[in-house]
Amino acid sequence: MTINYPNGKRYNRVVKRERSINTRKVKDSFSNRGMSLEDSINDSNTFYSTQNICIVHKKPTPITIVSVDNTTRSTTRITEAYFQVPSTTDYNGIYKGKYIDFEAKETSQKTSFPLQNFHDHQIIHMKKVNEHGGICFIIFHFKAFDETYLLDSDIVISFWKSQQTGGRKSIPKAVIEKEGHFIPVGYHPMIDYIKIVDRVYFA
Amino acid sequence: MTINYPNGKRYNRVVKRERSINTRKVKDSFSNRGMSLEDSINDSNTFYSTQNICIVHKKPTPITIVSVDNTTRSTTRITEAYFQVPSTTDYNGIYKGKYIDFEAKETSQKTSFPLQNFHDHQIIHMKKVNEHGGICFIIFHFKAFDETYLLDSDIVISFWKSQQTGGRKSIPKAVIEKEGHFIPVGYHPMIDYIKIVDRVYFA
Repeated sequence: MTINYPNGKRYNRVVKRERSINTRKVKDSFSNRGMSLEDSINDSNTFYSTQNICIVHKKPTPITIVSVDNTTRSTTRITEAYFQVPSTTDYNGIYKGKYIDFEAKETSQKTSFPLQNFHDHQIIHMKKVNEHGGICFIIFHFKAFDETYLLDSDIVISFWKSQQTGGRKSIPKAVIEKEGHFIPVGYHPMIDYIKIVDRVYFA
Repeated sequence: MTINYPNGKRYNRVVKRERSINTRKVKDSFSNRGMSLEDSINDSNTFYSTQNICIVHKKPTPITIVSVDNTTRSTTRITEAYFQVPSTTDYNGIYKGKYIDFEAKETSQKTSFPLQNFHDHQIIHMKKVNEHGGICFIIFHFKAFDETYLLDSDIVISFWKSQQTGGRKSIPKAVIEKEGHFIPVGYHPMIDYIKIVDRVYFA
């Protein structure tokens, strides 16, 4: 199978044997344990923090507060608020002195990852992080296969640019498999993405 | 005037002439312009981002959402939510490839900065950032004098530790003046803290 990159580069998809074996082995996914992708990343971050491996936090969801109730003396109750579109990625922190930044996204699609899952602001933010020497990637989760991959932000930015000039509106799963890095699901931590970061960015 | 550090170190307070002249010159403070400390730091971060100097964002305030109203199709309205105690500092980002992290705090006190303005989690977070090789500081604002200072987190952590063993519950303004770095209020950006960061951590 031949896939065209947005930049015109061609490559032949090679289904790695080890990978498919790996995937079949993973019967114990985080969703089987009733956890969302976000839960399992947060769980991993807590593990990393406890083990003093890295410090990564999920940013709170930005909201616009319209009204609050201060009548109860002990706590302020927010009575009207709305979700904002995030202007950055969801996670950032520090690993081995380096700034790391990432977004976690999941899809029910089987063959590709729709780019509409990203906001313009997030793509601009990723570009900036790269320009300033940070490490920036995306953790993709394909729900249908319970497969998780780490993909460098440059590839996502490249697909995003291509889309703006009429290119395809999604990233083929085959590209994520080939250019990205499979993250097996474990116990402690559940999603050991730092092991991949170490191999990809610190080797 | 002699001040004791929590670590027992003694020093003589020297009121720097340039500094007091500087302070007197600053008639145009951000509060005179109707802006809060947070507004003016956000304003500075937008300036830095536009000029491609650094990428720093304020983290959204963490809240616990209790109930939402989905009846209106276009937007989700949060109808009950509560503020959470933040587990990290408010600002983080990247400058010259390095992870930077800080908190901005203000007080109406005239002679010292009360430590109760910090949460345990924030102090623990600061310690961790230092351990992992990040740059971590606090921007202090004294409302009564309209004076803003940048102080390295190590000094705050040291006072915090001392407090836990019965030491004083605040950081004397004189310590912040001597060990910290005065940040004059300007126009673009309003609080040019990166200039200080550059001098203190990249010199």
